[in-house]
Formats: sequence, structure tokens, C-alpha cells
Amino acid sequence: MSQSKGTVVLAYSGGLDTSCILVWLKEQGYDVIAYLANIGQNENFEEARKKALALGARKVYIEDVSREFVEEFIWPAVQANALYEDRYLLGTSLARPCIARKQVEIARKEGAQFVSHGATGKGNDQVRFELTCYALWPQIKIIAPWRMPEFYNRFCGRNDLMDYAKKHGIPVPVTPKSPWSMDENLMHISYEAGILENPKNQAPPGLYTKTKDPATSPDTPDILEIEFRKGVPVKVTNTKDGATRQSSLELFVYLNEIAGKHGVGRIDIVENRFIGMKSRGFWYSPECDYVRHCISKSQEMVEGKVRVSAFKGQVYILGRESPRSLYNQELVSMNVQGDYEPSDATGFININSLRLKEYHRLQSKVAAKQNE
Amino acid sequence: MSQSKGTVVLAYSGGLDTSCILVWLKEQGYDVIAYLANIGQNENFEEARKKALALGARKVYIEDVSREFVEEFIWPAVQANALYEDRYLLGTSLARPCIARKQVEIARKEGAQFVSHGATGKGNDQVRFELTCYALWPQIKIIAPWRMPEFYNRFCGRNDLMDYAKKHGIPVPVTPKSPWSMDENLMHISYEAGILENPKNQAPPGLYTKTKDPATSPDTPDILEIEFRKGVPVKVTNTKDGATRQSSLELFVYLNEIAGKHGVGRIDIVENRFIGMKSRGFWYSPECDYVRHCISKSQEMVEGKVRVSAFKGQVYILGRESPRSLYNQELVSMNVQGDYEPSDATGFININSLRLKEYHRLQSKVAAKQNE
Amino acid sequence: MSQSKGTVVLAYSGGLDTSCILVWLKEQGYDVIAYLANIGQNENFEEARKKALALGARKVYIEDVSREFVEEFIWPAVQANALYEDRYLLGTSLARPCIARKQVEIARKEGAQFVSHGATGKGNDQVRFELTCYALWPQIKIIAPWRMPEFYNRFCGRNDLMDYAKKHGIPVPVTPKSPWSMDENLMHISYEAGILENPKNQAPPGLYTKTKDPATSPDTPDILEIEFRKGVPVKVTNTKDGATRQSSLELFVYLNEIAGKHGVGRIDIVENRFIGMKSRGFWYSPECDYVRHCISKSQEMVEGKVRVSAFKGQVYILGRESPRSLYNQELVSMNVQGDYEPSDATGFININSLRLKEYHRLQSKVAAKQNE
Amino acid sequence: MSQSKGTVVLAYSGGLDTSCILVWLKEQGYDVIAYLANIGQNENFEEARKKALALGARKVYIEDVSREFVEEFIWPAVQANALYEDRYLLGTSLARPCIARKQVEIARKEGAQFVSHGATGKGNDQVRFELTCYALWPQIKIIAPWRMPEFYNRFCGRNDLMDYAKKHGIPVPVTPKSPWSMDENLMHISYEAGILENPKNQAPPGLYTKTKDPATSPDTPDILEIEFRKGVPVKVTNTKDGATRQSSLELFVYLNEIAGKHGVGRIDIVENRFIGMKSRGFWYSPECDYVRHCISKSQEMVEGKVRVSAFKGQVYILGRESPRSLYNQELVSMNVQGDYEPSDATGFININSLRLKEYHRLQSKVAAKQNE
Repeated sequence: MSQSKGTVVLAYSGGLDTSCILVWLKEQGYDVIAYLANIGQNENFEEARKKALALGARKVYIEDVSREFVEEFIWPAVQANALYEDRYLLGTSLARPCIARKQVEIARKEGAQFVSHGATGKGNDQVRFELTCYALWPQIKIIAPWRMPEFYNRFCGRNDLMDYAKKHGIPVPVTPKSPWSMDENLMHISYEAGILENPKNQAPPGLYTKTKDPATSPDTPDILEIEFRKGVPVKVTNTKDGATRQSSLELFVYLNEIAGKHGVGRIDIVENRFIGMKSRGFWYSPECDYVRHCISKSQEMVEGKVRVSAFKGQVYILGRESPRSLYNQELVSMNVQGDYEPSDATGFININSLRLKEYHRLQSKVAAKQNE
Repeated sequence: MSQSKGTVVLAYSGGLDTSCILVWLKEQGYDVIAYLANIGQNENFEEARKKALALGARKVYIEDVSREFVEEFIWPAVQANALYEDRYLLGTSLARPCIARKQVEIARKEGAQFVSHGATGKGNDQVRFELTCYALWPQIKIIAPWRMPEFYNRFCGRNDLMDYAKKHGIPVPVTPKSPWSMDENLMHISYEAGILENPKNQAPPGLYTKTKDPATSPDTPDILEIEFRKGVPVKVTNTKDGATRQSSLELFVYLNEIAGKHGVGRIDIVENRFIGMKSRGFWYSPECDYVRHCISKSQEMVEGKVRVSAFKGQVYILGRESPRSLYNQELVSMNVQGDYEPSDATGFININSLRLKEYHRLQSKVAAKQNE
Repeated sequence: MSQSKGTVVLAYSGGLDTSCILVWLKEQGYDVIAYLANIGQNENFEEARKKALALGARKVYIEDVSREFVEEFIWPAVQANALYEDRYLLGTSLARPCIARKQVEIARKEGAQFVSHGATGKGNDQVRFELTCYALWPQIKIIAPWRMPEFYNRFCGRNDLMDYAKKHGIPVPVTPKSPWSMDENLMHISYEAGILENPKNQAPPGLYTKTKDPATSPDTPDILEIEFRKGVPVKVTNTKDGATRQSSLELFVYLNEIAGKHGVGRIDIVENRFIGMKSRGFWYSPECDYVRHCISKSQEMVEGKVRVSAFKGQVYILGRESPRSLYNQELVSMNVQGDYEPSDATGFININSLRLKEYHRLQSKVAAKQNE
Repeated sequence: MSQSKGTVVLAYSGGLDTSCILVWLKEQGYDVIAYLANIGQNENFEEARKKALALGARKVYIEDVSREFVEEFIWPAVQANALYEDRYLLGTSLARPCIARKQVEIARKEGAQFVSHGATGKGNDQVRFELTCYALWPQIKIIAPWRMPEFYNRFCGRNDLMDYAKKHGIPVPVTPKSPWSMDENLMHISYEAGILENPKNQAPPGLYTKTKDPATSPDTPDILEIEFRKGVPVKVTNTKDGATRQSSLELFVYLNEIAGKHGVGRIDIVENRFIGMKSRGFWYSPECDYVRHCISKSQEMVEGKVRVSAFKGQVYILGRESPRSLYNQELVSMNVQGDYEPSDATGFININSLRLKEYHRLQSKVAAKQNE
């Protein structure tokens, strides 16, 4: 028997693609360790473990990274009000460095020289995964089959994968492929590709699994009181039934549950890709370290409570308070005289208008000269 | 009889404050011309005219600025996606320069040396009004009674105004003062002051007049198709009944009507003020001229259609298309090989990761030296 | 004798203006404490002390703030590469909060309710001084005579001050007033006003006192090696004579001495003022605290040596090195193959060009349609 | 004889590298058209033409792009005050799209399917050249030998090129290779690589060819008056001898001549590369089109005269004036009362300090609570 080319830690999902990749890597002469992150997605992890072992994985790691995902990735994004194009909460981008960090950790522990993944050569995921790996372990070698001609020329479509699966005893999915691809974690589900690639098409209603349709969501709202410290939620209380959550992961999951029940959080967006258009994925970089530090510093005094109502696909702000707010009702009140004389405002406006008057005078002078 | 101190064009609303100001200005020896802008608010303009004349206004101007408000102020804001603190559409700020521009126009036409308004000495409106006036006519004199000690020391509260009104035959409102103040135009209504000054309080439901409560709004959505050219809407079609609007003002009013019917557009926000905190109001300034030019240039190719659904307080995007979009379904498709080799992505990632690897190497070297 | 209105700490310079203000304040019924900051200017401090006492100051503080000026104000500016309009090092703006901080300290210690200064009502200094005072002690009352009608209407020109001085035994300057005003500290001298107000005029050569004229400066350079840690100089060595300086204040003074000897550091600039144009002076504000923190964080790894030559009004960089630089000679060398395959660059360029090709294709399509 | 693979337009310099590439391309089966841009460099163009023909070029284009370089590339950069890292005027980056645009033009005219260049796989030039070509003609095929394994594995060093040259009758340079590489055009000369790769090394004095050493430059300055319109120079007058230049190219060349005579314009900088670090090269892109438009718009009123002195490596500003300046000597004068009351400044400062006082009060309250 030929000698092994080395050990690969493969990011394994249990699906058709990465199952074929697992077998193909062995075929190429590698030892394969399968790694599956539990980041809050709906998945039968034990079945996936059995399947990977059955396909020849030397070892299987199923790692729960949910809590670190919330605390080390989602909370900094909350502090930064991180929103992609004013609406997308970056649920996929934030998960990738969290998943890949653990993959590198396993590779180091196992003395593996290689990591591998099933991401395509067109999307952002390949970039996010690989930049994380290279940043954390510059010497690592990455095997990206979907970018290797010997792989992508052999597997030109789903039928080629199905044939290969049948031939190698890989369980073949009995349900037809869904007409889109999906990414799920405890923060969100996103769908893309397939029929969703035409931005003119409406997303079919059956696609939503985390949020109720607002048309059939409850007719009475849930009112939540959320307490913040240092810019992140530290406690949520449901005023209806008094339920509370205080631990980061449980609190986050609870907020998603209530929001989902009321149809809150559905968006439809045409994404830009790094490949071709857009820059993202540099979580482990000096500039991102620096930005996280500064954002976090800026949130030190962000503290207080907000009361919100979740209802029919919307979140309404009902009230807010903070012991550290610069807001001073007496100072701003239209009904009370505050800390200054109304006539001070005259000086303020006079001085702010100086340059506008000067600009106007100049424009007139230039115009006059042109009319001479 | 004493000689007139000159002519004032007063921005008149028909309410208690500006009615008292009108009489007070006459008392001070000015001729007063009352000016009331029709900018889409719900108002009995003819009654206001009669009242102003009865109080001694030499002349009354009621000017419809609705269309120019949409075309010259709202559309540029739409092109810029102008959003204050990510949610407020700036309905008040945009209206002020439009109203004040007409006031200056009237003052010039009437040979008036003065303009006057009823804005307080604490808010942003005084700044917006006066910067506009000074920018358009640097020599103008502004009378802002609420900043003049002889006025604000005499009228310390509503009761003083009521007494003055009774004494001078100014009709006194029979309904109690609403517990907030309000600004309305065709773009929005905003409420502030009074019980709303405590940001912990929820806005009382009775306050909303332009939007239905989502709890009682229709159970079926309206689906609108909106066509854009140069970054502004040029046609709206309601797919339910085929209704269309194409003219700027009618189109804008129709969109507000449908949105209001479905409870779309309610926000609750703690605003910053220029006095003390925040910079705004420089519509007529060289930098704002320049920004408007550049924004407008950037929108030249923004063209296409978007289909949206208005339902229960939300707007959902159903689909969009543009003949000028850089989006190319074939190029981005995950299912089709586009214009480049998947292996190109390897080079792309390798080169993007170079500096991350180098940074890691350096960090290790420095760490090692520190451990020596 | 009438009762005192309270105690004022006056920022006193020893010159005609603040001497008159000192006497005038006493005339108004205040107790006056004179405060003169030693911030590195060329001044006879003891003479100023005697003069203030002779004019009736109850007490005189002469405070050396040179070292804190370098360490707490100049160094953060160096870390930030703070440059106003790409050339002015902000020597005046940085000094003001340093001087005013000490003034507030004295006022607190002496239980004074007032501070006063001789800045005019047009410049930036009044803003810098007063914002510092208000930020550090919000209850302080500020007496700014040049903005008080009872003062500025009495002293309309220099002659009025001279007359007042003669009448009150204030020593009158024997030399004619220089045709400009000047601000000096250990960081710089700036001149403004008078004949300098016409930006078309060349600054007269006699005005320069800190820098030699490059036409007559030495014909051989000084070569300095400057060592940085955390973004600030920590050691300077003159390679000619081996002289070194390591302590912040001495180092800064030495660099200025050598630079001045070679005519380095002369600029001519038309400044914007806060009054009317420009925002500055918020050293003690939450946003400036935050920016200083972030800048300082960004400089943690800025470390190394730079060799420079000062010669004929110029500084030439001769070489630089850093143990923490990301620069890696081997990696970037054109002569050595580094960490990647040249063919990777092909993939990199292909992917970067994708959208340009797509844009061109689209432009052609749109152009074609327009020509149909 | 075998059929041609097609026609290549090769950016030819006359040097060893591109001469070898020319012959190698023919060896690979291509027809070669040599193209040499005259962009102001010091070059024997006729000799280069003869050499290219002798080596087998089917045709040689020598194109003078100097004037379009000044007017279409340098002037927009001047309008934008484009400075890389606060000191480098981008002389190389600006030249590349100008050169490549002409190359594409020739390729189209000649019906060539290919363009080729001698840039390495590490630098920025490959990116600038190729992005320009792809943007202007997306279908073009680019042959970059230094990134093709069959080329770079064959020519590992200068010796391999020399051997190849000898074998194929390519004239071999008799002088030893200079210990750096150089890029020259009418705007600048830059040097890099070789002994310059160590940033600690001082650039050897012999390297400078466009600027005199300030140590030996004239002891009297030249005084120039430069007149601007729309943000670009339109006329230069030397006050010493009255010489003037008004045409863009002649004016630019003259300014360089005078500056060079006085040693003005030497810088030493460590550059970032696109490959690995830095983004540049997108001259032909929608965002750069847009930025150029906006910059140009911003310069419409930039007009006036500046008098400068060039002396000993420095440019000193002596005076400036503009008929469109907002600067108003009377308004800003410290000696004249301008358009506002000094007491207005009190209101201005009071209102600007409001939030600082409030912040201080809050800080004290929070601190007090923590000390309870």
C-alpha cells in the first residue's frame, strides 16, 4: 500500500459535496480527519459522525462553538452596529472565522499539514476560510478541490457527484436538491444560488424556516426589555410572562426565538462578492484587531435599557433610558429654560452665517463682473 | 401716528404663538406681512388668511410650495439615501429651506427689510430658517422674538400668551394644548416636546395621524412597482388595481397614502440638536451645493424597477431589475462557470493572504524575542 | 471701601493689553490673581511678576508647564501626525488647553469664581481657552473683556490703551508696536495680523527668530538619528558630534535647535478660523479623549530608528529601520522569488479585472441601445 | 513554415528584457509589433526603432503621448492634490494608463488579439497595465512572460537573458547593470530595487539626474508666479528674466526644469505594493471616472496667482491672491471690526460649550456613584 501524502482536516457538513470530497481526498492518498462545527444549525450531528467514519475518516471532530460565536464574534459586531449595505447582519461572514479557527486548532493538535473545504471558487466563503487559516497558521497548506482542475473538470455537475457517490457507497440524498443553497447558524439562515440568482424573482414563501410569515404571526406583540452594558445585551425580560435570560448564548437564542415568532428579520438583498467587487473576510488582520479594539473602547459607556415590541415583522422601540446618557431632559426641554440665554443662540447663528453671507457676496461680485 | 419701523414678512401658522407675534410686531411699530406656506400640511388656509388680516396684517401670502418641495428638496435627499441616524428621513430639515426661500422671495418683492418667525431659541428650526435667509439675502434683518429678552421675559408661559390674546382680540384656542408639539408637511409628521421629552415614555397611540396602527391595518398587502430613473421614482403602479402615478408630487402623495394605510413609516428617535450637539441646516452653502451635484451625478445610471409589498408596518422587497445593472446572472451563478478559471481564485487568495502571513510571522518573532 | 465682586485668575502676559485688563478688572471691583505660563517662550518672567504686583495683583503665579506640554500635548499630536492643512503643526492650538488647564487648577485652589483672558472676539484662542475651562470646570465664570461692550467701546484702539496706561501708572512700551501679533512657545512661533493680513504680501525676513534664513544657514548638514518607541521620539543622536538627548523636553528642544540652525520649519499659510469657518479647540471633549486613545493604541508598535539630514531649510530622510516593520526585503525583492508563484498574480489580476470587463460590456450594450 | 498564432503588440523599451521577450514571442509563433511610448523620458527613440526591426518586429510604433499625459493624467492629479502617503506625486502610476491606452488603440487598429509587456510578477505595473487593457478592451488577451512558468523558469537571472541575447543576435549592453531599476517620464524619475531594497540605506548621490544637489544648487532663488484656472496652472512667469510659459506641456516641462535646477523634489519613500498591501491602478473604472468628475467640479472656482521661490531644495510660498477667494481681509482683520458684534462670540462659545459642561457633570455623577 502506498504511503500517505499526509493528514487533511476537512470541514465536513455531512452533505453530498463534502462526502464526495472526503472519499476523493482518500483516493488522492491523504488521511482525512472530518471536522463538523456545531454553530447552532439544525443538524443531526451523530448521523454525520457515523457517515464520515463509514466513508473512511480516520477521526471525526464535532465541536460546539456556539458560545464563542456569540461572545467573540456576534457581540463585537453588535457593538459596531455592523450592517452590510444597511441591512444584512453578516451572519455568514461572522461565522466563518469562528469555524476556521477551530479547524486550525484541530490541525495543529493532530499535526496535520493540510486543511480542506468544500467551498466553490466563486463565493466569499473560500476567502474567509483561507485568510483565517493563513493568518493563524501561515505554513498551512489548503486543498480547495472546487478550484483544482483535476476535481472540477471531473465533477461538472450534480450528476457527476451522484454517480461518484453511488460508485463509492456514499449515501445518495433521496430528496431532490433544493433549488437554492443555504447557510444556517444560530444567528441566521441565508439562501442563495439557484432560482434566487435572478434578482427580479420573489423568494418563495416556503424558504423561510426561522421566521413566521407576518401574515400569520400572532396578533399581539411580545414586549421585551433588553438591558445593555458596554454595548452588548446582558439581560432580556419578556414583560408578558416575566421570562428572563442573562447568559450570552441563551439570551441570543431567546431573542431569535421571539423575533422569529413575530416574523422579524426577513430581508432580501443582492450581495456583492469579494471576488470581483467587495472587500470582506479580514477578521484576523491587524486592521481588524485595531478596529475591534477601538469599537469596544467606544462602547464602554453604552449602558441602559431599551423596551421594544416585536410584532408583525417589525420591532418598535417603546422607550429607552441610560444612567450614562448625555441626554438631559431639563436642558433640552422646550418648556423649561435651560443652561443658557436664548439670546446666546443669536450669537451662535450670526457666527455660523458669516461665511454664507460672505459666499453670497462673492458670488454676486463674480456674477456682476461676468455681466459687465 | 408714529412712523413705521419698516416691513416684516412673518412666517405665520395661524396658531396662538405666531398670532401673538403678529400683534406684538405691530405693537413694536412694524408693518406686518403674513406668509403661510402650503407644504402639504392639513390646514384651513382660508381661515388662517382671514385671521391674519383681522389681526392687522397688511397683506397675506399663502404659497403652495408642495411641488418644489418634492422636486428640489425631497428628490435630492432620495438620491442621497439621506437618513439621519439610520432612520429619520429628515422631513422637517428638508422643509425649512424650501419655506424660507419663498419667504425671502416675498421680502424682496415687497421691499421688506425684515423677516420674522416663531421658532424657539433652543431648537434647530431657528438655525435652518435663518441660515437660509442669510445665505440668500445677506443684508436681511431677522426678528426672532423668542430670543429677544423683551419678548421672552414678557411671555414666560402659555398663560401669558393667552392673556395677551384675550386682551388683543386674538381668538383663543378652545381645545387644551396638545401635550406635544408637531410639525407636518406632505413628507411626514413629527412630534416632540411635552410628554415626549422623556425618552423612556412610549409615544401614545392617539398621536399617529398619517399611519394606521399595524395591528388594525389591512390583512392583505398592496404590491407596488416603482420605476426609477436617475435615482428618483418616475412611475408607480399598484399591481392590485392597476392605479398609476407619474407626476412627482402625485406619485409621492400616493406612495405616502398606501404606506400610511399599511402602517409603514413609524419611528421613534431621540434627536440631536444643532444647539449643543449636531450639525445640520446648511442647505444653501457651497459644500451642500457641491454634495448635491456629486450625488446627482452618481445617480445618473440608477434606473430600473423595484417591486415592493407594503404590509403591517413593513415594506418587503419582492424583486428588482435594471437595464444598467452590473449584476450579471451568468457571471455570478454558482451553477455556471463564468468568465474566469476557478484556479484564478487561488492566486487571488494567495496574494491577499501574503501580508497576513507576514504579520503572523512578525508577531511570532517579536513574541519570541520578548520571551528570551 | 466697597466689597469685592470676587476673585479672578487672569491669564497675564506682561504686555500692554493684559496689564490694562488687570487694572480694569480691579476697577470693576474684582480681586485679581495674575497667572503667567512658562511654556517655553522667550520672556523675562521675573519682570512680569514685579509688574503684575505693582499693578495691584493680589498674587502672581508663574507656572512652568513646558514638560507637560511636550508629553501630554505635543507627543499625542506627533503620534497622530497631526497636521493642519498639510503643513501647520498646530503649535498654538496645542498650547492653549495646556495653559488653560493650569489656570483652572489655580482658580480651584484659590477658590476663585472667575477666570479672564485678553484674547479678542475674532480669533480661535478665546474658543480654545474657554472650552477648556468650561469642560474642566462647568461652573466657572469667564470674563472676556474684548467681547464686553463696556470694554471694547472704551478701548477702540491702541491709543486708548496707551492713555489708560499712562493714567494708571502702567508702564508704556517704548518701542513702537510691531506690525503683526505673535504667539511663541517651545514648539513654535507664529505671526499674524497687521501687515500679514494681506495674503499677497511676502512675510518680511526680519520676522523669523527661531529659524535661520536658508540662504545663510550652514553649508554642511547635521545628521540626526532619531529613535522612536510607541510613535514618539525617545532618543536623538547627532552623528556629527555624538550629542544625545533622551528626556522628552530636552530632546524636543534640541531638535528645534538643530532644525532652526538649518532653517527648517518655515511655513506661510492662510488659516481658517473657528469663528466663521473651521472647527478646532475640543481637546477636552469625549470625542477627543476617544481619538487620543485610539491613536495611541495604533502607535503601540511604531518603533525604530530614522536617520535624517537637516540642511538648507529641508529635512532629508536618509534611512529607516524597525524591528516591528512588516517590510520584508526578501519578500518584496524584485531580484528574489518570494513567497508566491508569479502565476498567482495572474489570478489576482483576472479577478480584479472581472468587474471592469463587465462594466465595459454594459457600457457598450447601453451605448448600442441608444444608437438603435 | 508554421502558421502564426496571431499578432502581439509588445510594450517595448529597447532594453535587454523586452528585446529578449520580442525574440521569444516570435519563437513562440507570434507576429510582433513593437510599441514605444514617448512620455518624456530621455531615450534614443530612433535607435530603439532600428533595434526592434532588426530583431524581427513586423512594425514599430513610436508614439508621443507627452501632451495627453500632462493634460489628461497629470492635471487631474494636480486638481485632486493627489499625493501618495503625503509625499509621492504618483509619477509612475499616472503614466501607466496613458501608455497602455495607446497600446490598446494600436492593437485595435492592427487587429491584434494580444498585448504583451515586460513587467514582473511582483510589482504594481503589471496590474496598472493590465487593468487598463481589460477595462478598455475586455476581450484582449495579455501575454505576461514574467508570470509564465515556461518563461520565468528559463530565464532565472540576468545571465540567462545575456546568454539568450548572444545566441539570438540581440545587442548585449556593454555597461554593467545599474544597481537599481528606474522609471522615467516627463513628470519624474523613480528608482527602486537592487541596493535600494534595504530601507536603511541612503540613496547614493549619483542616482539623481533630474534635480541638482541642494548643496551645489544656485545661491539665489528663482521666483515664479504661477497662475491657476480651474485648479490647474495656465501660465508661469519667471520674475527674474520675465520668461513665460502658457501651453500645458511646455509649462510643465519648464516648472520641472526650474525646480530641478534648485534641487526641488527629491523624496525617499518606502512604497506599498498592490500585490500584498495596497490598492491602486483603477484609473479606468466607474469609481475613478466619478471621482475625477467630482474633483474637477470642485476646482471650478480655484483660480488666482501664487508667487513661489525655488531655492536649495525647497519651494517657499511668497504670496497668493484670488478673485474668487472667500478670504476677506476686512472681515478677518484683528484691527478692524467686521460684520458682527464681539458679543456674538460669547453666545457662540456658550452654545458650543453646553455639551462639554453636560459631559463633565455626567462624569462627576457617575464617578460619585462609583465612590458610594
